[in-house]
Amino acid sequence: MNENKRKYTVGVDFGTLSGRAVLVDVNDGREVSTAVHPYRHGVIDRRLPDSDVELEPDWALQDPNDYLEVFKKAVPALLAESGVDPADVIGIGIDFTACTMLPTTVDGTPLCFLDRWRDNPHAWVKLWKHHAAQPEANRLNETARAFGYDFLDRYGGKISSEWFFPKAWQILDEAPQLYEAAGRLIEAADWVVWRLTGQEKRCAPLAGYKAIWSREIGFPPNGFFRALDPRLQNIVDEKMSRQLYDLGEKAGGLTEEAAAWTGLKAGTAVAVANIDAHVSVPAATVTEPGQMTIVLGTSNCHMVLGTEEQIVPGMCGYVADGILPGFYGYEAGQSCVGDHFAWFVENCVPAAYQLEAAERGMDIHELLEEKASRLVPGENGLLALDWWNGNRSILVDVDLTGMMLGMTLATRPEEIYRALVEATAYGTRLIIDTFNRHGVPVSEIVGTGGLPERNQLLMQIYADVTGLPITIPVTSQTPAVGAAMHGAVAAGRRAGGYDTIFEASRQMSHLRDDRYEPIVENQAIYEVLYQEYVRLHDYFGRGANDVMKRLKEIRYRARRHPQAGVMPAAEVGA
Amino acid sequence: MNENKRKYTVGVDFGTLSGRAVLVDVNDGREVSTAVHPYRHGVIDRRLPDSDVELEPDWALQDPNDYLEVFKKAVPALLAESGVDPADVIGIGIDFTACTMLPTTVDGTPLCFLDRWRDNPHAWVKLWKHHAAQPEANRLNETARAFGYDFLDRYGGKISSEWFFPKAWQILDEAPQLYEAAGRLIEAADWVVWRLTGQEKRCAPLAGYKAIWSREIGFPPNGFFRALDPRLQNIVDEKMSRQLYDLGEKAGGLTEEAAAWTGLKAGTAVAVANIDAHVSVPAATVTEPGQMTIVLGTSNCHMVLGTEEQIVPGMCGYVADGILPGFYGYEAGQSCVGDHFAWFVENCVPAAYQLEAAERGMDIHELLEEKASRLVPGENGLLALDWWNGNRSILVDVDLTGMMLGMTLATRPEEIYRALVEATAYGTRLIIDTFNRHGVPVSEIVGTGGLPERNQLLMQIYADVTGLPITIPVTSQTPAVGAAMHGAVAAGRRAGGYDTIFEASRQMSHLRDDRYEPIVENQAIYEVLYQEYVRLHDYFGRGANDVMKRLKEIRYRARRHPQAGVMPAAEVGA
Repeated sequence: MNENKRKYTVGVDFGTLSGRAVLVDVNDGREVSTAVHPYRHGVIDRRLPDSDVELEPDWALQDPNDYLEVFKKAVPALLAESGVDPADVIGIGIDFTACTMLPTTVDGTPLCFLDRWRDNPHAWVKLWKHHAAQPEANRLNETARAFGYDFLDRYGGKISSEWFFPKAWQILDEAPQLYEAAGRLIEAADWVVWRLTGQEKRCAPLAGYKAIWSREIGFPPNGFFRALDPRLQNIVDEKMSRQLYDLGEKAGGLTEEAAAWTGLKAGTAVAVANIDAHVSVPAATVTEPGQMTIVLGTSNCHMVLGTEEQIVPGMCGYVADGILPGFYGYEAGQSCVGDHFAWFVENCVPAAYQLEAAERGMDIHELLEEKASRLVPGENGLLALDWWNGNRSILVDVDLTGMMLGMTLATRPEEIYRALVEATAYGTRLIIDTFNRHGVPVSEIVGTGGLPERNQLLMQIYADVTGLPITIPVTSQTPAVGAAMHGAVAAGRRAGGYDTIFEASRQMSHLRDDRYEPIVENQAIYEVLYQEYVRLHDYFGRGANDVMKRLKEIRYRARRHPQAGVMPAAEVGA
Repeated sequence: MNENKRKYTVGVDFGTLSGRAVLVDVNDGREVSTAVHPYRHGVIDRRLPDSDVELEPDWALQDPNDYLEVFKKAVPALLAESGVDPADVIGIGIDFTACTMLPTTVDGTPLCFLDRWRDNPHAWVKLWKHHAAQPEANRLNETARAFGYDFLDRYGGKISSEWFFPKAWQILDEAPQLYEAAGRLIEAADWVVWRLTGQEKRCAPLAGYKAIWSREIGFPPNGFFRALDPRLQNIVDEKMSRQLYDLGEKAGGLTEEAAAWTGLKAGTAVAVANIDAHVSVPAATVTEPGQMTIVLGTSNCHMVLGTEEQIVPGMCGYVADGILPGFYGYEAGQSCVGDHFAWFVENCVPAAYQLEAAERGMDIHELLEEKASRLVPGENGLLALDWWNGNRSILVDVDLTGMMLGMTLATRPEEIYRALVEATAYGTRLIIDTFNRHGVPVSEIVGTGGLPERNQLLMQIYADVTGLPITIPVTSQTPAVGAAMHGAVAAGRRAGGYDTIFEASRQMSHLRDDRYEPIVENQAIYEVLYQEYVRLHDYFGRGANDVMKRLKEIRYRARRHPQAGVMPAAEVGA
């Protein structure tokens, strides 16, 4: 191909702490340049920027201006670094954490940009991990059950406090005037596309996974919202939109203003927004059923494509055309994976190990991996339940907590570390088994995210525990590349892109040559240990012994009333 | 009292790593001087001294010469430091770890002192924590059950591998010629008394607690030993003695040789040997039923006096006149207490905490105690089973392992530390409840050993969890003082001592003024948590889910065959 004919797209991945932009060659997916822009205000969880307004413990906010800065800083950096002519950049796509939502005026101005609302925490972006809407989530779930609405079935039986309506309802509950002033309530993903194109074109799968929307039924009926709170009755029509757009569609062209921010040409095709985990799927070469894409990071996100609608217990949700067109996109998750190891390193690794790592110039995680790699399966004698941050799938229960057993006076830190890794592998195996049992087959794994590159031991244990081969994409930035692929689809074949995400994936995504195969001997012993895991999982997770919940309740009361730290036995023990 | 009339006794406490001698005023128990002599060879668990002979993993030996060195070094130091006239020292008593046993010639010369046997590990002292006789212990227990011998009932249903006959049998199994050459097999406690007096006068309670002897029945019948191994048939008559002596009896007078070692006068009364934990009871002021003496150290030892013979499930043993004359001496135990905290500090305390302790000039245990003290009961949200070293009472099961649950990503090291302390307190509460339910009442606690002085938080938690007041003796060296009290009884009233241990205890032992009272609010919450502990205790400890044993078996095989690390699922999972 003549160099002149090369076309490029830009993908922008909006993460929790920074935005990552990548410039990709449309022909083969080659990553030409990358730029990362950390958000100036990061996660706002103590006090509002330039303000004395303090936040409650479970809050997590962001500043929408930080997102715009990514367009203004990182995208121009791509062009500068690569020397690519903006005329050869045919499209741009974005992906975002979700549900990450904000209130704006009808023209899309965030309320936190306005002096009148700037000191109100509810005016800011509620980040995905904002957990202060749990009371609203509880009431929503109770109401849905009481009224017999069956949409909970699509979400493993429960709506999370992280999702759209609990967050929206919290605004109404705590700041009714601000709620009234909000012309729009919108996912940040859709909002940045709006900023780029001047058009509010909301992504259908975002509504499907986070706002109880389905292609067949739409949003819950107004009567449901009225049952929650009469003032919510018309929330969809007043603050949102019933007009939704599919993945890969062109939301519009870059406005002059956005062209000036980015250095790209006005009119450049902008794709409808996407969810960060989901956009990784085609970038990981996965375009058909049977392959599970797992994003392994602080938490795990498991995605599978299915040809039929199935109710799989305990998944996070499924949406028709939710990940790729023509398939049901099924999602499950584990809420504590990389976070688990980080907790362990911070709280449980002795000084001698830190010293050894420092002396050998190693990261402490590397040292633990090295030591744990010397153990054979079963040698640690330990078994853990990976619920330090609750259980997302398949139990969908945030009140479960961690468990470990088998410790002796000879138990070493690397043995505990390995047990934590193994526990997350058992959790993934249980998710896969559950999909398989309920008509969504899984026969291989593609591992993406931060962990597969960094932790070979973890990948081998996952292969051994699941009994499935694991491949890894060439790119280490699947979300941004996946977003760029959607930019190429938004541009279309005529402009030098592709007409479908399938074509784009075939051309632009690649796997590494090496792969992790299950080791037969390890599989045999992990099969035994997995059965033990399942037995404990069911004992502690399915009501035989709700000790974890009772302890959590006791702890909660003890912290609320530290001066007493006490309650009548009869009140708690039941 | 005229200073000239003051009389003194010496107590020598033979611990695991050193011998501690104390010179005590007979009149009031005042500790005049103390001297500690560390054993030159400590615990021999890698290779024999001055030798290439390596030991297997579970071995733990000692050099009997190290014990004699205590008499030669520490006792003279007492006299030198105090200036007391040896003529005013009327008696000496010793206590020892048990079962700590050795083979000697008929005249009491340890086989390891003889060139012919010195290179054979079986010629040395088998320390209490020598665990290599587990196969023999298993076969002994199986045989006793098969033949319907009911003596297991006196020991919670099982004889430990730490006790006398498994250790003796291991010698026969692995070194039959050495077994043949041993004229005597004897507790080190009895052996040092023999060295002091020239007379082999064995202590009856030592045989009662460690060698399946009872006052009513004596040793098991020869037929039982024959069933174990025909060569063991006459072990009692050939290698031991059926003539046993009670606590407080005079074993004899110091020989000229021993007088030269110690600097004491020849003929000074020497008491029959005693067990280290038991000798603490009268030194802790406990001389009647209802009071539980707990030695809190690396492990916990619980002792109660009873007026009737009761079968209490899961105790370590009971012996008539075993602790004090006229009472059944009941003993129970927890195998992991101080060891628990030591394990935690070595393996789980992060560098930041070590740094903080160093900067503040604190011991790391102190720092953890300080941080854990700021938590109220229930605030850590954690619950543990204290089985890192198996369960001695009331389950009598070495194959159980540790368990903890309730961990979240916010769980801090001091919360885990407090959960470990609490777990040992729940274990003690369960022992007390079991005694109470089976006719051996317990209504208060006297705490001795290393922990009560060092860890106020632990003592308060024990009071709160058990709901019982806890007092602490004035002396911090109860075993040595208790041994000195027995020396005073061996000397008798006529020589300036006492005729009974009850008189000696009344005069020579004292409690501190301060005591730990249960805090009512804490008791209420710990009552709830204790019920949770009992439920998990029974689930994991009584067969509902033997996962701990299966993991241990898997671990055992993985370590034996690390190249494979595997076994057929069907073989293990059952």
